[in-house]
Amino acid sequence: MNRITRPLELSMAKITDFFWARYIELTRTEMLPYQWEVLNDRIPQVTPSYCIHNLRLAAGLEKGEYQGPNYQESDLGKWIEAVGYVLVARPDPALEKKADEAIDLICAAQQEDGYLNIYNIVTGQEKRWTNMKDGHELYCLGHLLEGALSYYKATGKDTFLNAMIRYTDLVDKTFGPEPEKHKGYPGHEEIESALIRLHELTGNERYLKLAKHFIDQRGQEPLYFDEEINRYAPDAQRLAFRSRQYQAEIPVREQHDARGHAVRQVYLCVAMAELSKILDDKELFAACGRLWESITERRMYITGSIGSSAHGEAFSFDYDLPNDSAYAETCAAIGLVFFARRMLEISPDSRYGDTMERALYNGVLSGIALDGKSFFYVNPLEVWPDAVEKDPFKSHVKIERQKWFGTSCCPPNVARLLTSLAHYTFTLNNEGLLFMHLFIGGTYKHNVGGTEITLDIETRYPWDGLIKVSVSAALPVNFPFAFRVPHWSPKYTVTINGKEAAVPRKNGYAYLTRSWKTGDTLSINFDMPVMVNRANPAVRENLGKVAVSKGPLIYCLEEADNGKNLHLLYLAENPDFTTVFKPDTLGGISVMSSNGKELINNWPKGSLYRKAEPVLCADKTLTWIPYYAWANRGRGEMRVWVNHFPCP
Amino acid sequence: MNRITRPLELSMAKITDFFWARYIELTRTEMLPYQWEVLNDRIPQVTPSYCIHNLRLAAGLEKGEYQGPNYQESDLGKWIEAVGYVLVARPDPALEKKADEAIDLICAAQQEDGYLNIYNIVTGQEKRWTNMKDGHELYCLGHLLEGALSYYKATGKDTFLNAMIRYTDLVDKTFGPEPEKHKGYPGHEEIESALIRLHELTGNERYLKLAKHFIDQRGQEPLYFDEEINRYAPDAQRLAFRSRQYQAEIPVREQHDARGHAVRQVYLCVAMAELSKILDDKELFAACGRLWESITERRMYITGSIGSSAHGEAFSFDYDLPNDSAYAETCAAIGLVFFARRMLEISPDSRYGDTMERALYNGVLSGIALDGKSFFYVNPLEVWPDAVEKDPFKSHVKIERQKWFGTSCCPPNVARLLTSLAHYTFTLNNEGLLFMHLFIGGTYKHNVGGTEITLDIETRYPWDGLIKVSVSAALPVNFPFAFRVPHWSPKYTVTINGKEAAVPRKNGYAYLTRSWKTGDTLSINFDMPVMVNRANPAVRENLGKVAVSKGPLIYCLEEADNGKNLHLLYLAENPDFTTVFKPDTLGGISVMSSNGKELINNWPKGSLYRKAEPVLCADKTLTWIPYYAWANRGRGEMRVWVNHFPCP
Repeated sequence: MNRITRPLELSMAKITDFFWARYIELTRTEMLPYQWEVLNDRIPQVTPSYCIHNLRLAAGLEKGEYQGPNYQESDLGKWIEAVGYVLVARPDPALEKKADEAIDLICAAQQEDGYLNIYNIVTGQEKRWTNMKDGHELYCLGHLLEGALSYYKATGKDTFLNAMIRYTDLVDKTFGPEPEKHKGYPGHEEIESALIRLHELTGNERYLKLAKHFIDQRGQEPLYFDEEINRYAPDAQRLAFRSRQYQAEIPVREQHDARGHAVRQVYLCVAMAELSKILDDKELFAACGRLWESITERRMYITGSIGSSAHGEAFSFDYDLPNDSAYAETCAAIGLVFFARRMLEISPDSRYGDTMERALYNGVLSGIALDGKSFFYVNPLEVWPDAVEKDPFKSHVKIERQKWFGTSCCPPNVARLLTSLAHYTFTLNNEGLLFMHLFIGGTYKHNVGGTEITLDIETRYPWDGLIKVSVSAALPVNFPFAFRVPHWSPKYTVTINGKEAAVPRKNGYAYLTRSWKTGDTLSINFDMPVMVNRANPAVRENLGKVAVSKGPLIYCLEEADNGKNLHLLYLAENPDFTTVFKPDTLGGISVMSSNGKELINNWPKGSLYRKAEPVLCADKTLTWIPYYAWANRGRGEMRVWVNHFPCP
Repeated sequence: MNRITRPLELSMAKITDFFWARYIELTRTEMLPYQWEVLNDRIPQVTPSYCIHNLRLAAGLEKGEYQGPNYQESDLGKWIEAVGYVLVARPDPALEKKADEAIDLICAAQQEDGYLNIYNIVTGQEKRWTNMKDGHELYCLGHLLEGALSYYKATGKDTFLNAMIRYTDLVDKTFGPEPEKHKGYPGHEEIESALIRLHELTGNERYLKLAKHFIDQRGQEPLYFDEEINRYAPDAQRLAFRSRQYQAEIPVREQHDARGHAVRQVYLCVAMAELSKILDDKELFAACGRLWESITERRMYITGSIGSSAHGEAFSFDYDLPNDSAYAETCAAIGLVFFARRMLEISPDSRYGDTMERALYNGVLSGIALDGKSFFYVNPLEVWPDAVEKDPFKSHVKIERQKWFGTSCCPPNVARLLTSLAHYTFTLNNEGLLFMHLFIGGTYKHNVGGTEITLDIETRYPWDGLIKVSVSAALPVNFPFAFRVPHWSPKYTVTINGKEAAVPRKNGYAYLTRSWKTGDTLSINFDMPVMVNRANPAVRENLGKVAVSKGPLIYCLEEADNGKNLHLLYLAENPDFTTVFKPDTLGGISVMSSNGKELINNWPKGSLYRKAEPVLCADKTLTWIPYYAWANRGRGEMRVWVNHFPCP
């Protein structure tokens, strides 16, 4: 059986999920309109974006100075991409009007030869392609191109897409292996994947070839970024980070460890996986596999967040996963979701699906507030507000979600992921194979040999593990329907039309192959016990501590429920948990309680060290909430990894 | 009884201590000659000092560029101070010749009007007194003046002292409360204490007044450093730190918390305490008391190291005492020893003496290698070499002691402390009261009403708690002899001439008042059990961990004895310790063994998180060495705070 798949088209999905529908609608009605206002610098007291301001300068509609970092249009690219995804699902003339307005501005800024980097157009085009390392020209093009592709697919309007193709063709003429061409490659990967999607749409091999060139050129000697630093006056910024930070120290096919900037690393992995799938490039896929293992087996937080170091927003080293100074950028967790799905398309293995789910429900979702209008860039697993406020080495950590950021890659990245969830829920192929990777209620269509099958999915997931699938089809159709068996479920039952079914399982996916017909009902019921998790003892930070989860959700303790000094709390040795779904708490969550202990601090004032006496503990009920929902009730402490009584 | 005292003159002491004599002789024969070579940039492969090079430029003996930071002559000031202390104890013509050579150079650089800042003389005197915040002019003067005072007292040669008095008089003419005078004060405190010592020698009140002015001027509105930044073009360096870093945000008499740069803070405290003693200034002494409590009750490592943050080499906030990223500068621990002795001179209380001892035997002594020729600037309480090498936020931590530093304040600071230990061992007053604060073998003279008493002290301290004092005196003399009863000793016995004596105790000092005569022998025997210590539970870093000490020495685990992965080791719940003195190990130390456990890491490859299973532990004998002796056997892990089994 050919197990290679592609994601379900968004037009084939209508998500009505108990958990996610609220977020998706919030994205349409609140998050995207809010972000548009911010891109226009129209929200008082919010860090200005300058994105539209800069565009207006580039389009010659305004005089003034470029402001903000050199990659501000990338936020708009992602915003348009998300608007496109929204418009596939349902009309929204107001959003569409805003997008058209933005597109007009972008197109008005385009130069005669197609060039369209806003920073250089405003500040001096003599700088074209001279700062590949940190200039973000190709990164911005990548995001604009992805926005154009999404918008075109949703609306059929091709103005933006044509403009971006003109710019892409200029890039294709400029870069490449031919002797006369520029030998650089992007300091921030992103265009590679956009080129692959442009190839997918147009069938034009040039784009695929260029993507492959950019990927294979990285790390070739002499190192381009070193040459660039030597060629142009080295300044502090150019010297700050060298090729390692950009995954360009050695060729990507030889890389073993995730290194450097985490978002860049996973964006590169996405493109590497896509290319390996299209070209059946086993060497490249093997490199993807090694990087996957490096990330998820040695360098990933239990929340699916990655990139533990604030120094360069980067991967650090094996098992270095500090909780309170974690960088754990929202975009990096999003990138890991992207990477996981590409791996699933090639190799359906629940290792990938489990991690995709882990990142999505935890490290990604923690990036937004319940109101959809404030955001975390950094997602720590432990917060002590005093330390965050007073320790300059934790200044990247925020206690409360922010309205915007000077570099605001994360908010529109969340928007484009939430509006395209169906891409991650199902993948399928032309032989009819359908994989369900996530458990998200809605109506999904699958076309097998010309017959359309509709799957209606009902579930209260992640609050419980029961997933009901109702089938309707014009004719009975035989196809294999496979679903992921999550790592956290010790057992599960499957019934078809009320009768328990045996399901063969391979690499963590259960396969049901039968002739599906209207009226078939499939019921999957995953046991979803509370899990007390430990980290590999090589993670020094977590020794003697445990993390609590239920289903895909990692839980945490928050000061609002448990008081201050969370470091004094211990989960009981053999804890009992009770779970109650509270529809009015934090947008509707299952709150958990468990027995625990609190260490009594009976030290006299002024005593800093003394002879060890037996420690006094009092019983204490611990209250747990899902990690993603923390920091929605004001300033306070939070902990994912909690002491375990006694320890070890 | 008047309990106010002054330190014993160095000329009255001859240290022959089992523990310290080796260090003091090493300082004379190895450390000081080595440092002289480094100050002359004559040691290959060692970070150049440029100190003598810069002096030669300033003296017009060479052409070239000033190199290194703007405070390089301060190292030489401390070096000459130490040489002076050596020469009090015994002649050393080679060292004296080097010092004379340096002094000639310094004097040759002095300007017509007395000015003598090397950096400005070489790079432009228009900058005189324009960068009080970071220019270090008065700091350098302070150290040169202390060097001159020490050298004059040792040799009677007054060339250097006279030169420094001329410079000091220029400073006195320049700064002060009078309307026409400069309103600045030093960014790095040091001159205040030097001025007080110059007043002590000369009796000239001007110097005392100027010291008081500098102290009381700090933090007065408008804040001088803010004015300075505004007056001169603010550059990045000037803006990096504001008044708080320099203890100049509020007046010193209103300060409650140790703040900013730790060495600066304790040097300020030294001068505040000295001034409060001389002027009987109770308000100032109260401020000293508050700062003492802030430092030692909430912001001090168990090693007596202070200044936990690398950001500004500074105090951070209460109970923020990270072990692996500790800054804990050697100079700051030395400054705490200085501060403690000043407090003891005013108020004999074992709180001060205990802390002085704690810092001296641990956080200070860890600053030098056994060979006296390599040094720690930063003194972490936990080292994992992988993390130090790979985490840029730990780049200040070194795994092995260094031959020298770009800023190399610590090595000569250690030298001047080791060569003046008698100042910290005994303080006394004109009424005959003699305090023994430290237990250091040697011969000490005490003069009571014209009769000289000699105390011969024999001890193997800190390896055991027995201290024998033999008295000789021309006539029997009645005087109170007081000694500190260390906090770590649960009981002790005192015998005089073989008969147990009852000793009244006040504020942690035992007082023996009697007529002392030749042949009297006093024997003090402190029980010195192994102590298992805990930190206040507010120190989050140390929860569930204990530190082991014996007498004044904090112990640690080192990889050389215990293997890798020290984080997996647990001290047994009720441990038994055996102690063996090993004369050939690490310069002669008591090595301790205890029972413990090792957590077995039985996790399969690739498993980062999993359901908590009971943890497997194996018995493991732990081997402990004194903290000060770590890092003398190559690269490896080290831990002071060790897991305690079970915990809490």
